[in-house]
Amino acid sequence: MRAMSKRGLTPQSEDFSAWYNEIVFQADLVDLSPVRGSFVIRPYGYALWENIQRDLDAMFKATGHENLYFPLLIPMSFFAREAKHVEGFSPELAVVTHAGGKELEEPLAIRPTSETIIGELYSKWVQSYRDLPLLYNQWANVMRWELRTRPFLRTTEFLWQEGHTAHATADEAIAETHRMLDVYAAFARDYAAIPVIEGEKTEGERFAGALQTLTIEAMMRDRKALQSGTSHYMGENFSRAFDISFNDENNEQAFAHTTSWGFSTRFIGAIIMSHGDDAGLILPPRLAPHQVVIVPIAPGKDADAAAEVGAAVTELAARLRAGGVRVKVDDREGTSPGRKFNEWERKGVPFRIELGPNDVSTGSAVLVDRLSGEKVSLATADLAERMPGLLEEFQRRLFARAKAFRDEHLLEAEDYGELKEKLDHGWVYATHCGDPESEARIQQETKATVRCIPLDGPSAEGTRCVHTGRPSGYPRKVIFARAY
Amino acid sequence: MRAMSKRGLTPQSEDFSAWYNEIVFQADLVDLSPVRGSFVIRPYGYALWENIQRDLDAMFKATGHENLYFPLLIPMSFFAREAKHVEGFSPELAVVTHAGGKELEEPLAIRPTSETIIGELYSKWVQSYRDLPLLYNQWANVMRWELRTRPFLRTTEFLWQEGHTAHATADEAIAETHRMLDVYAAFARDYAAIPVIEGEKTEGERFAGALQTLTIEAMMRDRKALQSGTSHYMGENFSRAFDISFNDENNEQAFAHTTSWGFSTRFIGAIIMSHGDDAGLILPPRLAPHQVVIVPIAPGKDADAAAEVGAAVTELAARLRAGGVRVKVDDREGTSPGRKFNEWERKGVPFRIELGPNDVSTGSAVLVDRLSGEKVSLATADLAERMPGLLEEFQRRLFARAKAFRDEHLLEAEDYGELKEKLDHGWVYATHCGDPESEARIQQETKATVRCIPLDGPSAEGTRCVHTGRPSGYPRKVIFARAY
Repeated sequence: MRAMSKRGLTPQSEDFSAWYNEIVFQADLVDLSPVRGSFVIRPYGYALWENIQRDLDAMFKATGHENLYFPLLIPMSFFAREAKHVEGFSPELAVVTHAGGKELEEPLAIRPTSETIIGELYSKWVQSYRDLPLLYNQWANVMRWELRTRPFLRTTEFLWQEGHTAHATADEAIAETHRMLDVYAAFARDYAAIPVIEGEKTEGERFAGALQTLTIEAMMRDRKALQSGTSHYMGENFSRAFDISFNDENNEQAFAHTTSWGFSTRFIGAIIMSHGDDAGLILPPRLAPHQVVIVPIAPGKDADAAAEVGAAVTELAARLRAGGVRVKVDDREGTSPGRKFNEWERKGVPFRIELGPNDVSTGSAVLVDRLSGEKVSLATADLAERMPGLLEEFQRRLFARAKAFRDEHLLEAEDYGELKEKLDHGWVYATHCGDPESEARIQQETKATVRCIPLDGPSAEGTRCVHTGRPSGYPRKVIFARAY
Repeated sequence: MRAMSKRGLTPQSEDFSAWYNEIVFQADLVDLSPVRGSFVIRPYGYALWENIQRDLDAMFKATGHENLYFPLLIPMSFFAREAKHVEGFSPELAVVTHAGGKELEEPLAIRPTSETIIGELYSKWVQSYRDLPLLYNQWANVMRWELRTRPFLRTTEFLWQEGHTAHATADEAIAETHRMLDVYAAFARDYAAIPVIEGEKTEGERFAGALQTLTIEAMMRDRKALQSGTSHYMGENFSRAFDISFNDENNEQAFAHTTSWGFSTRFIGAIIMSHGDDAGLILPPRLAPHQVVIVPIAPGKDADAAAEVGAAVTELAARLRAGGVRVKVDDREGTSPGRKFNEWERKGVPFRIELGPNDVSTGSAVLVDRLSGEKVSLATADLAERMPGLLEEFQRRLFARAKAFRDEHLLEAEDYGELKEKLDHGWVYATHCGDPESEARIQQETKATVRCIPLDGPSAEGTRCVHTGRPSGYPRKVIFARAY
């Protein structure tokens, strides 16, 4: 991949993929690195991740979870203990064979996910039903050696959180997977202004080793789907493989039921592609590194006027910050206001405030809305007071826009011809028999996959598979879509 | 290393090292892992690290730094570009040779520190003096394949932050290294209640590739020193190796001056060994995961009384939390109050509150101070109101105790005999000529090293080296001590 020049940004309608590949560099979110498929997350991109972490972590803690940290390296033999897990992850492992100047007796893999090493420890921590549930999470880097990589969406190394819980019963564990899926969906909606559909993956799309994989699916502005968070019920698969067993209340030996759930820097890709437009990013205020940027319009040679503008900007910034607003003052010298406007539009800051000598004399400032493009002049005193409300309003409008777009492109098909036709226009609800071979054939023919069997949505009762004509394999119509 | 049983804790005076190795497991800070020299950081230990991160990160941001993230893996060839750096780190590297099922063309090392890969990117980001300074930091895991490991103090993988900055001039870069050393010292003092001595390392103890290494040194309760944070001035070493050059204000090409500074999970070891006693940890309130633990004293069979106690505990906890206090309610069934008292003492929670039926009837509770051991009965209304102040007071007392202990064991020697004798009792200020050979000989003979040339402390003017009799190599007397 080539980092494009700062100049042009391909319009979304012309080539959405090019737009994405350009904007991640132009908005200073990432940079190339010397390691294949790994990207440097630059401060502007990392600040977005820090805000995601802060809010999501608070939601984990509010639902009773604690953080901890497991080792980066996992003995290779651990993977083999769960048959599907090793099959799914072996091809993507990065392997340490030498350390401290010597060849290791057993090679160590950089974690692609931590079920196995966590299973090993849970086996030790769980002895009695009184030790359950274990409700733990870790924020960590993981590595999956993928062939085709794209910033945030698919990278050899990525940052994520992985929750791992162990429970005494299947019911409790399944309730946990749903609870955490709901946390992800609420986070996407309330913080990232992204509407998502919650659903279950079909057998072929399940996490390697899981009995059930739940997902939240978000619609990008090119109408493709992005899997944005997953929550897995493992049943006893891992507890049998790692002997996470306990004495139950009747003093009988039982295996724990485990779950895992993950959310990664991939979600930054979802934010970019859910809201961005031809001018660049549009960031949801709750997660935006800067919610407001103030650009002082410094008059040419007049030092007194410049000082007055500077003082007014400093005062306004202080008042906004006192109201809890994240403000950036762009007082760089040698860069024209026009260039600054461009840059902050590209970086998706919700509001820009322009303040020049005329504004100082009238006690006002110009407020520009990144979403509507509207430009209004407001008294600075009003501005400071109204800004928290304006940001909430921006957040609501951004969500409403994303939801309207998604709903508009959420279609339904009665037969295979209709499915194929409508897949060019959006996501399509259709009945499917559940046969993996049919699913694979549809993918071959349409490039679309079953994104999920939605937890909510049109019933499949009395309908027949659009592909095979057989009875529906699921209680609801599934969602077909092309996806990242 | 063996995880000891929960029962006994070796007294510090008997075997300080055994005490340490036991308490890290008994207080649920860490657990063993299947990977040599790596430990699992359990929730109680990780919560301590999260609190450290939160406060230190705020200090970094207040001094103008931003966070970002560089890749975990570094091409092996990068290390060779800085001669001393490769010499220092090569023996400790963990190396990925295979990934995605294939042998890599060039092996990749897991970062032991990130100067090299960061240098590669800074080279690209720095073109003009207008691009400087770069003031960046990352929170990350790193790996150094050490032979002898101990939880927190020396582990193959550890968590840390590494700040990396680039500046237009040497003066600015040197000022940065001192600024960040001061941040570390202030954090140790104000948050961890640990007094530290700031100083410079001698040539032999410098970071591999640095011109100057500054350190904060803390005294453990066995009077050994623990290097607790370091800040390095690299001069142009890395900017020449990675071509971090720029057009200066006169349009001439110049090399940037770089710094790096790091603070790691090792500091948890400093907290443990600065404050702990024979009953276990004593945690500074500002960093303690739980500042207060409430233990309800449930009466035997009386369900009404138990409900009353439960309600009083819930109310008290809510009032404490409303005052910003981190409260743990230990209402586990099947565990006796005595056992709970023991466990929370071991885990170093500053205050314990005991609340039973008699307390409910008098509207009071028993408050037990982990540091003084004092036990007082207080009206619950008072307790809630006074707790924030009591915690601040605890924090001050803890610091005062650590400082008194440190000052008491901060000695001075006029000759070599006195140095050898006093090293059994504490740290010793003494004049040194600066000759590395003499330093090595002293270490051989006394097991003590020069911890630092303090930035402040007794002048060496007119004195002579206690070992060689030559003139002092430094403006001040250095500190000799045995160290971790």
